Amino acid sequence: MRQESRLLRWIWWIVVVTALFLLGFTIGWFAKPSHTSTESHKASNEYLKEFLDEMQTDQIRDHLRKFTRLPHLAGTEQNLKYAEQIQKEWQEFGLDSVEMVPYDVLLSYPNKSQPNYISIVDQLGNEVFNTSLAEPVPQGYEDISNIVPPYSAFSAKGQPEGDLVYVNYGRTEDFFQLEREMGINVTGKIVIVRYGKIFRGNKVKNAMLAGAQGIIMFSDPADYWAAGVQPYPDGWNLPGGGAQRGNVLNLNGAGDPLTPGYPAKEYTYRFSLEEGVGLPKIPVHPIGFDDAIHLLKNMGGQTSPNNWKGALNISYKIGPGFTDDFKTQKVRMNIQTNNQVTRIYNVIGRIRGAVEPDRYVILGGHRDAWVFGGIDPMSGAAVVHETVRSAGTLLRKGWRPRRTIIFASWDAEEFGLLGSTEWAEDNAKLLQERAVAYINADSAIEGMYTLRVDCTPSLHTLVYDLTKQIASPEAGEERVSLYDSWHKRDNWTNERDAPRISKLGSGSDFEAYFIRLGIAAGRARYTKNKKTERYSSYPVYHSVYETFEIVDGFYDPSFKRLRAVAQVRGGLIFLLADSQLLPLDADEYAHSLRKYAQSIAGLAQNHPEQMELYKVSFDSLFSAVQNFTVAARDFHERLQTLNREDPLQVRMVNDQLMYLERAFIDPLGLPDRRFYRHVIFAPSSHNKYAGESFPGIYDALFDIENSPDPEDAWKEVKKHISIAAFTVHAAAMTLTPPA
Amino acid sequence: MRQESRLLRWIWWIVVVTALFLLGFTIGWFAKPSHTSTESHKASNEYLKEFLDEMQTDQIRDHLRKFTRLPHLAGTEQNLKYAEQIQKEWQEFGLDSVEMVPYDVLLSYPNKSQPNYISIVDQLGNEVFNTSLAEPVPQGYEDISNIVPPYSAFSAKGQPEGDLVYVNYGRTEDFFQLEREMGINVTGKIVIVRYGKIFRGNKVKNAMLAGAQGIIMFSDPADYWAAGVQPYPDGWNLPGGGAQRGNVLNLNGAGDPLTPGYPAKEYTYRFSLEEGVGLPKIPVHPIGFDDAIHLLKNMGGQTSPNNWKGALNISYKIGPGFTDDFKTQKVRMNIQTNNQVTRIYNVIGRIRGAVEPDRYVILGGHRDAWVFGGIDPMSGAAVVHETVRSAGTLLRKGWRPRRTIIFASWDAEEFGLLGSTEWAEDNAKLLQERAVAYINADSAIEGMYTLRVDCTPSLHTLVYDLTKQIASPEAGEERVSLYDSWHKRDNWTNERDAPRISKLGSGSDFEAYFIRLGIAAGRARYTKNKKTERYSSYPVYHSVYETFEIVDGFYDPSFKRLRAVAQVRGGLIFLLADSQLLPLDADEYAHSLRKYAQSIAGLAQNHPEQMELYKVSFDSLFSAVQNFTVAARDFHERLQTLNREDPLQVRMVNDQLMYLERAFIDPLGLPDRRFYRHVIFAPSSHNKYAGESFPGIYDALFDIENSPDPEDAWKEVKKHISIAAFTVHAAAMTLTPPA
Repeated sequence: MRQESRLLRWIWWIVVVTALFLLGFTIGWFAKPSHTSTESHKASNEYLKEFLDEMQTDQIRDHLRKFTRLPHLAGTEQNLKYAEQIQKEWQEFGLDSVEMVPYDVLLSYPNKSQPNYISIVDQLGNEVFNTSLAEPVPQGYEDISNIVPPYSAFSAKGQPEGDLVYVNYGRTEDFFQLEREMGINVTGKIVIVRYGKIFRGNKVKNAMLAGAQGIIMFSDPADYWAAGVQPYPDGWNLPGGGAQRGNVLNLNGAGDPLTPGYPAKEYTYRFSLEEGVGLPKIPVHPIGFDDAIHLLKNMGGQTSPNNWKGALNISYKIGPGFTDDFKTQKVRMNIQTNNQVTRIYNVIGRIRGAVEPDRYVILGGHRDAWVFGGIDPMSGAAVVHETVRSAGTLLRKGWRPRRTIIFASWDAEEFGLLGSTEWAEDNAKLLQERAVAYINADSAIEGMYTLRVDCTPSLHTLVYDLTKQIASPEAGEERVSLYDSWHKRDNWTNERDAPRISKLGSGSDFEAYFIRLGIAAGRARYTKNKKTERYSSYPVYHSVYETFEIVDGFYDPSFKRLRAVAQVRGGLIFLLADSQLLPLDADEYAHSLRKYAQSIAGLAQNHPEQMELYKVSFDSLFSAVQNFTVAARDFHERLQTLNREDPLQVRMVNDQLMYLERAFIDPLGLPDRRFYRHVIFAPSSHNKYAGESFPGIYDALFDIENSPDPEDAWKEVKKHISIAAFTVHAAAMTLTPPA
Repeated sequence: MRQESRLLRWIWWIVVVTALFLLGFTIGWFAKPSHTSTESHKASNEYLKEFLDEMQTDQIRDHLRKFTRLPHLAGTEQNLKYAEQIQKEWQEFGLDSVEMVPYDVLLSYPNKSQPNYISIVDQLGNEVFNTSLAEPVPQGYEDISNIVPPYSAFSAKGQPEGDLVYVNYGRTEDFFQLEREMGINVTGKIVIVRYGKIFRGNKVKNAMLAGAQGIIMFSDPADYWAAGVQPYPDGWNLPGGGAQRGNVLNLNGAGDPLTPGYPAKEYTYRFSLEEGVGLPKIPVHPIGFDDAIHLLKNMGGQTSPNNWKGALNISYKIGPGFTDDFKTQKVRMNIQTNNQVTRIYNVIGRIRGAVEPDRYVILGGHRDAWVFGGIDPMSGAAVVHETVRSAGTLLRKGWRPRRTIIFASWDAEEFGLLGSTEWAEDNAKLLQERAVAYINADSAIEGMYTLRVDCTPSLHTLVYDLTKQIASPEAGEERVSLYDSWHKRDNWTNERDAPRISKLGSGSDFEAYFIRLGIAAGRARYTKNKKTERYSSYPVYHSVYETFEIVDGFYDPSFKRLRAVAQVRGGLIFLLADSQLLPLDADEYAHSLRKYAQSIAGLAQNHPEQMELYKVSFDSLFSAVQNFTVAARDFHERLQTLNREDPLQVRMVNDQLMYLERAFIDPLGLPDRRFYRHVIFAPSSHNKYAGESFPGIYDALFDIENSPDPEDAWKEVKKHISIAAFTVHAAAMTLTPPA
């Protein structure tokens, strides 16, 4: 009995011990997280709110004030000083590393001892009128030296003399009209065109192709004057003495003209100036409308069609040359601008990713300005600065993004996107393999109306989601989201009931990242009301009147608009860097591809007989788009059942999302534009600022009715339909299960 | 007292329960693996042994027998039948998927009703001698139809008539010697050259550039006859009636001549024949030495230098034309070969990777043969077949590789690497992002002496490690490793005390993968003793005498050599697909880069005055190599402390290793060879078969002493030094920590 009881007690003991052990084991087993490297979403979302809330209007104002006191043209000492200051402050804000990255690129400056100007000369060669050598300096800046006068960077040197011909905006269609309808040949003439509508470099190219020996560009009040607004400093309109600086290159994505394809380092082989990419062969010069009146008022020849007439009180005659009374007078350009290899500096800051340090999300914008850069680019640079400050604050609180974030302050954007392109060339291999997205940060404001976003289709959804979490900056909209405020003002009506998002063109630093390397990209800024404000960019664009005061006094006195832009740009970077699954949407890409395919096929359908004759069909493209649509849908469906606990599973689908944009790159490039390699998007051949979808097909179709050999021309169309169809098929493949 | 004791007991109880629970918890915690997806190494190594041991000589013999019974030229029904059989058998072996992938490419066939031949014609135009229309059929194959007669695929059509000029091997240096030293101009002449030393397409290009109106290539016994060996079927020498088929394209990596850069699908835009890439503009034809004697024996003109003399019993006069006795006779070529867009079929089999299905290791080799393909390619295809069978056996035992393995049976390799290149174009995006390595499987045997390996430097270490685990196939070496057997026979003396490994050239299907896409690549086969056997490739190369019997009877009667090759090719695939850390060695790449840089700088140093005059320096290249060397060393050092339990850490370093080869790709390509994009390796411009290191610099230096504008020529050298230095720097960057 006693033995039995002892036995029972032992058995009972063993059972209890075992049970307890098992209980502990089981709890221990399940208590341990089964993955080592997936972060908590909740924490990430809380940090997003903190990140956005940390951005402050007075901070942005301070940044803008600080970096607009002095002119800081690319290649000048002051622009290096600002770079050093940015480097120092980013370090203080708490970035893991901030480095200065120099390149030696071709820049272009006026000759200080021989200023550029344009004259009217009489038959004896006497200068009876000269354009002004500089803009009247705005008040408060009278003692500032080193303000570069208005000039066309990379203009050829020379003193061409001849009759003027007025060619409206200098667009392809303007030259077509001039030559085909008005029967005017500009060979040996000097053309004068108004600024606006297209990139000035395209105007210069058109003038060269037409045979002109020089080109003058002026700002017409029709294009740079808002109704009811005073000229600066009493308002934000362009004074009559103001003129638009700017480069007149046709780089087509090459970056530094002397080192296309490779970074402009000390050891890099350089082309001679004659071999340089995109350098104009004729003199070019910009003037304001006060000067333009003098050149235009006595012009003879035909009268302009109405849509060629600007807002000056003159008759806008076409020429060539002056009316009979002034027949003996000619126009002479005096251009002494020099090209010069010059050192520039990018500032590159980094936050190392906690989980995937080898995945990069980039926020980049330029620092160099034509003069003070009050709007372009410092309104954008101030926003980047505040984003870095806010990220630094979070880092100190223990946050660290899943992926690496790279902040860039680019140099020499104004000279052809040089700093950003050289860095892209320098890091092409790393970026190709590791870059998730590039968000651009040029001017943050160009109007006072609402948000403007241009981005790749896969970012549409993220932009909408994010702007719903940001407040409207507009007075009286305290409880309205930025999304709703934007939606109300710019509904994408013919596409969907949502705010309009546009295609990326070019003209800013995202170009090499998006168009050459195929990295998902986007940009955001505050803009004007396009329906009512018909001027190009903004009136004081690239003039000396782009000051701190024009932003502080007119564009954004509360700095809430700039803060909203900071929150959009910063929020995009945050979510791209910190979301476990990349917030990229392949379905949206499919939707856009279909839209673009319909649009380009519609364009071809303007020539139904020729399409039939030369057997041109878009079937292969539509079939590829359908294939892509199904692949995208299936991909997002599979995401629903993804095991998010498995870090490799997550990495694999993220890689598919990251490489989706890359899949649209054709290594062979577009015809004659080898650095434009995106088959879906390229800057328009006729206006660099505008984005063209299916650019290969578009260019082949352009002006096809005037082709000397229609069969060959349609062959080119067919070739590009084939390339587009293949590329879309290949992109679809990248979305299917990898094995 | 009793209460106290009860309390004590309770306390004791609580302590015990807690302790037991904690013990259990702790054990449970640590018992659970902290990673979900790293496999066991031990298991993998055991499987390697099983995988290699499973490969059997009699199976390889059976595979070879089965696929060499009938001629299976690309584009013929029989080659499709073999494809279907391979597809079926690979499925039976147990691959996860096997698909047939067709393309429509340009092929070239003789006209069946108008055979090709060459005549000697008298002054009346009568054919006094005609070359044979076919090779004597080997015994046992008398009833076989569809044996294509010897021809030069893609020859132009035509009946050129003229005087013969003998130009040795038709190499660049032979034409230089002919023109510069012998003063002979071949414009309008028909050149006759012997096969060997360089790729036949280069001979044709040289003849065209020299102005010849046709070219005849013959197999000289000096180049296709081994001493003391009988002609087939009594031995493995080339009979006098045998001739070498082959394509004469200069594709430079373009693949299908009509669809360069894009896969030749149904919807793909095709160039016209005139626009096609690399098609010769003159007639070309191959003959055996029995026929060659008739054409050569009466030739007049200068006597050949000794190194131009072959082994025929003739005097090898240069010409032009015949001796005085035969002065009125001319040679006329009659070539009726047709180009034709034809459907070809690749067979693509897959084993899905268990852990990283989105990482691809590829074993590919061609299936199409000129006739039976006893050696080329079926000795290789049999080896691939056995590799697939062995992998299938392992799959059934529960093995599954970490990464995806892709097996490919390429079509139309003989017509310019067409099947493999079209598939590479079709899948370029996926391969660029996901391909770890490509192992090539053309002919597995070309001699009876020892192993031959050509591969990228990062594979050196793996090849050495693996061959130490494989047995020598040689009789009397039962306990000797393949490594030791190979080492003994072909020591890389001037490089290191280890078996020789060579650079990859081209002439087989790895080309698009390695040179265009930058995927680490290698090939292995059994070879002859280069020191004593001086004939090119092997005597019966591309003749009808490449039968099963020549392998079974002479080259490898035990089939142990083929098994050893199977184990090398298969073992490489296995270890690349299944090792947790990729077995790629960046240090070896650094070592090779230094060697190549020294070699190319040494070549330039042949012109010390000019280097000084034009300020040519290799400093930037050596500095880049030094940078790469340090980066590689640091990278491998960091690997020592890698946390292999963290799947993302492992993935990140593996990505760095995988993308290392990709870093050497220049998207702009080599000058005039845009599909050759590897800056370190390219096929020689003068002989496609040979690999050239730093090909851009090499080509710029070639024949520089005869450049019409030495300043420009040296600029080109400097440009390519700069590109090479940049590329090596960029590759070094990919090895540094990613953030």
